[in-house]
Amino acid sequence: MTTAPERVQIDVVPSFLEDAWWTPDRAAADEDGTVVRDASTGEELAVVSTAGIDTAAAIRFARTTGQTELGRMTFHERALKLKELAQYLNAQRDPLYELSARTGATRIDSMVDIDGGIGVLFTFGSKGRRELPNSHVIVDGPAEVLSKDGSFLGTHIYTRIPGVAVQINAFNFPVWGMLEKFAPAFLAGVPTIVKPATPTGFLTAAVVKLMIGSAILPAGALQLISGPARDILDHLDYRDLVAFTGSASTATMLKSHPSVEQGGVRFTSETDSLNAAILGPDAVPGTPEFDAFVKSLVTEVTVKAGQKCTSIRRSIVPEALVDDVVRAAGERIRSRVTLGDPRAEGVTMGALASLAQLEGVQDSVRELLAGGASVAFGSLDAPDVVLADNTSGKAPDGAFMEPVLLTWDDVEAGALHSVEAFGPVASVIGYEDLPHAIRLAALGSGSLVATVCTDDPAVAQELVLGIAAHHGRVLILNREDARSSTGHGSPVPHLVHGGPGRAGGGEELGGMRSVLHHMQRTAVQGSPNMLTSITGEWHAGADRRFDDGHPFRKDLATLRIGDAVRSELRQVTLEDISAFAETTGDTFYAHTNEEAAAANPFFPGIVAHGYLLLSWGAGLFVDPEPGPVLANYGLENLRFITPVAAGDSIRVTLTAKRITPRETDEYGEVAWDAVLHNQDDEIVATYDVLTLVEK
Amino acid sequence: MTTAPERVQIDVVPSFLEDAWWTPDRAAADEDGTVVRDASTGEELAVVSTAGIDTAAAIRFARTTGQTELGRMTFHERALKLKELAQYLNAQRDPLYELSARTGATRIDSMVDIDGGIGVLFTFGSKGRRELPNSHVIVDGPAEVLSKDGSFLGTHIYTRIPGVAVQINAFNFPVWGMLEKFAPAFLAGVPTIVKPATPTGFLTAAVVKLMIGSAILPAGALQLISGPARDILDHLDYRDLVAFTGSASTATMLKSHPSVEQGGVRFTSETDSLNAAILGPDAVPGTPEFDAFVKSLVTEVTVKAGQKCTSIRRSIVPEALVDDVVRAAGERIRSRVTLGDPRAEGVTMGALASLAQLEGVQDSVRELLAGGASVAFGSLDAPDVVLADNTSGKAPDGAFMEPVLLTWDDVEAGALHSVEAFGPVASVIGYEDLPHAIRLAALGSGSLVATVCTDDPAVAQELVLGIAAHHGRVLILNREDARSSTGHGSPVPHLVHGGPGRAGGGEELGGMRSVLHHMQRTAVQGSPNMLTSITGEWHAGADRRFDDGHPFRKDLATLRIGDAVRSELRQVTLEDISAFAETTGDTFYAHTNEEAAAANPFFPGIVAHGYLLLSWGAGLFVDPEPGPVLANYGLENLRFITPVAAGDSIRVTLTAKRITPRETDEYGEVAWDAVLHNQDDEIVATYDVLTLVEK
Repeated sequence: MTTAPERVQIDVVPSFLEDAWWTPDRAAADEDGTVVRDASTGEELAVVSTAGIDTAAAIRFARTTGQTELGRMTFHERALKLKELAQYLNAQRDPLYELSARTGATRIDSMVDIDGGIGVLFTFGSKGRRELPNSHVIVDGPAEVLSKDGSFLGTHIYTRIPGVAVQINAFNFPVWGMLEKFAPAFLAGVPTIVKPATPTGFLTAAVVKLMIGSAILPAGALQLISGPARDILDHLDYRDLVAFTGSASTATMLKSHPSVEQGGVRFTSETDSLNAAILGPDAVPGTPEFDAFVKSLVTEVTVKAGQKCTSIRRSIVPEALVDDVVRAAGERIRSRVTLGDPRAEGVTMGALASLAQLEGVQDSVRELLAGGASVAFGSLDAPDVVLADNTSGKAPDGAFMEPVLLTWDDVEAGALHSVEAFGPVASVIGYEDLPHAIRLAALGSGSLVATVCTDDPAVAQELVLGIAAHHGRVLILNREDARSSTGHGSPVPHLVHGGPGRAGGGEELGGMRSVLHHMQRTAVQGSPNMLTSITGEWHAGADRRFDDGHPFRKDLATLRIGDAVRSELRQVTLEDISAFAETTGDTFYAHTNEEAAAANPFFPGIVAHGYLLLSWGAGLFVDPEPGPVLANYGLENLRFITPVAAGDSIRVTLTAKRITPRETDEYGEVAWDAVLHNQDDEIVATYDVLTLVEK
Repeated sequence: MTTAPERVQIDVVPSFLEDAWWTPDRAAADEDGTVVRDASTGEELAVVSTAGIDTAAAIRFARTTGQTELGRMTFHERALKLKELAQYLNAQRDPLYELSARTGATRIDSMVDIDGGIGVLFTFGSKGRRELPNSHVIVDGPAEVLSKDGSFLGTHIYTRIPGVAVQINAFNFPVWGMLEKFAPAFLAGVPTIVKPATPTGFLTAAVVKLMIGSAILPAGALQLISGPARDILDHLDYRDLVAFTGSASTATMLKSHPSVEQGGVRFTSETDSLNAAILGPDAVPGTPEFDAFVKSLVTEVTVKAGQKCTSIRRSIVPEALVDDVVRAAGERIRSRVTLGDPRAEGVTMGALASLAQLEGVQDSVRELLAGGASVAFGSLDAPDVVLADNTSGKAPDGAFMEPVLLTWDDVEAGALHSVEAFGPVASVIGYEDLPHAIRLAALGSGSLVATVCTDDPAVAQELVLGIAAHHGRVLILNREDARSSTGHGSPVPHLVHGGPGRAGGGEELGGMRSVLHHMQRTAVQGSPNMLTSITGEWHAGADRRFDDGHPFRKDLATLRIGDAVRSELRQVTLEDISAFAETTGDTFYAHTNEEAAAANPFFPGIVAHGYLLLSWGAGLFVDPEPGPVLANYGLENLRFITPVAAGDSIRVTLTAKRITPRETDEYGEVAWDAVLHNQDDEIVATYDVLTLVEK
């Protein structure tokens, strides 16, 4: 808060508001701002200030321009933007690595953050096009028939929330932390306002600069507040979402804001978490599981200097193995870990993000010691480190700390299960039996992730099902996946990241699950015609067009939902069934042996093969000449309802149900509702035929 | 709070705690209790008191005995209990109707509450067995392959939350309100503590008495607190769930409790809601839609005397039609509605639940009038009503009120969109165009339900997609479903009940969706063998048993996940393809015309029919003699991956993937993982074969 002359040399980290870059008045920034320093050297890097910012205008801009612009795009179009953005950022990583090193991050740490963040964009870009419709509405589950005559149905749709996603991020992953929240919000069609943490927000700002510079994103899709945004919740309401990552105390403060408590703001958080790793009784020293466990523990304590919400804080191991684990982990740290400036050679563990963070972690360790812990490895003393010039020595302005392992006499001590030292610190404690291990893990009161390390499926089952409800993610580590595993501490975009209780109760990732958290689920009731109109999917009972030519002659541009074809009846004879049995080899007794078939509870006697009915169905609906329908690539939801005996006849009705043009191909998917009826108009079978059709 | 001598004549409403009936000390109840009165006559009915109750013990009992007992049962076993319970209660309704009349409810009102509640049990009893596995773990979505070699996968499971569901209900639906929350919690395996509202809790207690008396429920599954439970949140934590229905102000108070704000209690609520009904511009007088709209408005204002969270509070109609709607609704009220004691003949609208409620509604109407409303129909004056003895007159101790329709000069007035008069009161306002109608509906700041009344699919689409994100349910009313619709105000157990913003943000119903709200979703990562062990479903890459005989020879008791059969290769010739085309009629050019087939982007030339491959696949895996496999009832997830040309060969591998024994049949479902390979071990097709197999 000084106004020393050298201050004018360093930049104010800019914000991006209402589609333009913004910095506060310089004098106000110098008066009000926070100076950010290099984690390893203490060098001043930038000033962070939002003096005079108009957050209400940013929210308005998101709700108007942002919503409008994002609303013009379908899910597939937005997914494609994410892919383009990922490709663009992927080519621009080098300057980001340099900035990242200033946060204390080693090359590996930076890859976790930067490449990991870009990977999230790639995943959502790809999954969004594979798993979502190319439209604006997601249908959730099958329709429910609510009246006997079929004229009244119910279904569920997801539409995007009509506000803004305010994303308040933690300092430890300035890139990944932003992108993992941005990607699902963007894909859902919800504008983002991102507020990074002060110590590392300069790196976030650099990435946003690239993202905006790419001109890939529409106006209002992304805004950045580089610095405090204390009044932002005042302007939010039930249309908006706040996604917070950080301390439980800040989360509590935000949750108690009237906009959340009464105003209905959707609030999700990812907060403190004392994640456990449980070593199975079978995983004794000498087993691959023991080695994998120790390796994972050391990785989690040292990567990002242990500043990970997902890091292992509590190693829960068989009582007899506590000493073995501590000894093996200590040896691995001594032989593998080199602490120092990330820009120096051979350094494998960097600094904490700031001196303030270092102090906080040291305070937490003292609290753990006061609560009953003993230091089994490492110390709080200022360590010798490798300096930027590759010499070794103390770095008084660098936030360095040795890995520390703690042990406990009382394994149920309160501090052990509630004080999170957010740095290179973990406890190793012993359990008596599996129920005891489960109880100890649950004492964390809800965590992001736990590892269960065992090669015994029964042990895995007992432990995983015992702790699942207390965790957002559980990793089972054994000899089969020790090499291929992505690791305890790495959330993957496909799977839920978040956890109950102390972990905040959110689900930030999880593939399309996290997209749906940015949408409102609404039950829609109405007639088949009306539900067809709302969802864009044909519903049984809605109008069809039979008189407009064979629908297989229409390309994607002319085909309409409800275009249909209906066949004549074709009789199935006993000879047909016998011949089919013979040529296919499917001589199941229900098709070949009258007496045995009649004894089956479901059949009147010999019946036609289900596959015969399907094959004939295709023969009845197909239009054989070359045309826009390229291939039948699959089939869904097939159910055989009424058996078909010799002498019965079948006919098929095929109706265009769902049309999904692809953005990057000259064709798209068409799902057809297929129904086979018999001569008495009873339903023989229902299924969806999946085809590829030219644009 | 008086201690008049007649007090000893009336009963204290009992609570059911720790598997036993409990009432407070009589003197304490008389000192501390609230007297409940007949809504129509003011007659004293019961005393409500929980003086000296030990809520902490009830929570402990739920978390221990309740969790243990419910955990012994699978989803199907619990679903079956719900069905039994529904059948039991269905036979015991008459005394419940009598009690219900004392709450002011007419016969129709009581049916909505009592039969509606039993219907929820039936629905969950049936859907639970159809849609959930017969085990303890629900798998959510397909597995994600997380390593190139397939040795590391991720999937999601739901396991029940490890605590208790505390259900705090409103006075208006003492039976349905309890059962609609109890059913999903029970099905999930989570013990319930239900706390009904004081004025009508005697009816809830009567139903709980029947439920407990049936001896269908295991110990700890259901406890009842008849009266205040002020300290109950103090004892809850992240393992538990509170589901609240009532006022927004009480919800805010509960949400600000430290157990929710910091302790991680899952809190869902269903609170105030100023539900809208929008009349489309096409739905002018004389159309079936206009009539359906007016009928629905009158129904919602008069059923339960308008004491429904889902009632229509705001009719949003074309400006020119405001007078028509008010006039038509007024005429319908005058001709169809008879206000009075529900036990009297011909009465179609009963009393509010209590004089206190009446006073509250009248206060709200006065607030609306002060906010700019005019009374267009009805009044606040004490109405003449039909008394219990079938005479007509004033009922000074009855909580009677006429239906009131309000109109507004300023259709954006604050009070109009924020003050909920929880009785027979609705506003009728005019809109300029569809965007204006959408804006007006959204001014409710989040509602449970809206009706869109139009016969124009384009109008329906614009309105429904415009308001969906502000609503939990939208009903489209037109001539096609006007008769078959379950109506604006009736939540159905299959569909979401709840809404964003002012409506509380919950999803109380919604079929299995509401069961999942009582469970924790957890990502599980591990090797295929480990995921198979955790989920009970075979995962690609996990071990298989080929050497234990053909799996079609095993009944459900002996068949194990991973039991498999692998066929020899069978060659497909051009003659086979031609013959299949001829017999099935499927002469699609890709199977019959070499030149045209080769021009197709996906085929090398003539290829075998997908249905030929499927049919031969069955021929290759089938074991023909009678045995435990009864039928192939369907197929899922079929994808054709590699085309098969003449000269190629195929083989099939079939693996038992998922086994679901039925509780009430002598057989169950077995899903088989089927993979077709070609002679080069490329995957030709993958699918799941669904069979019925004897126990």
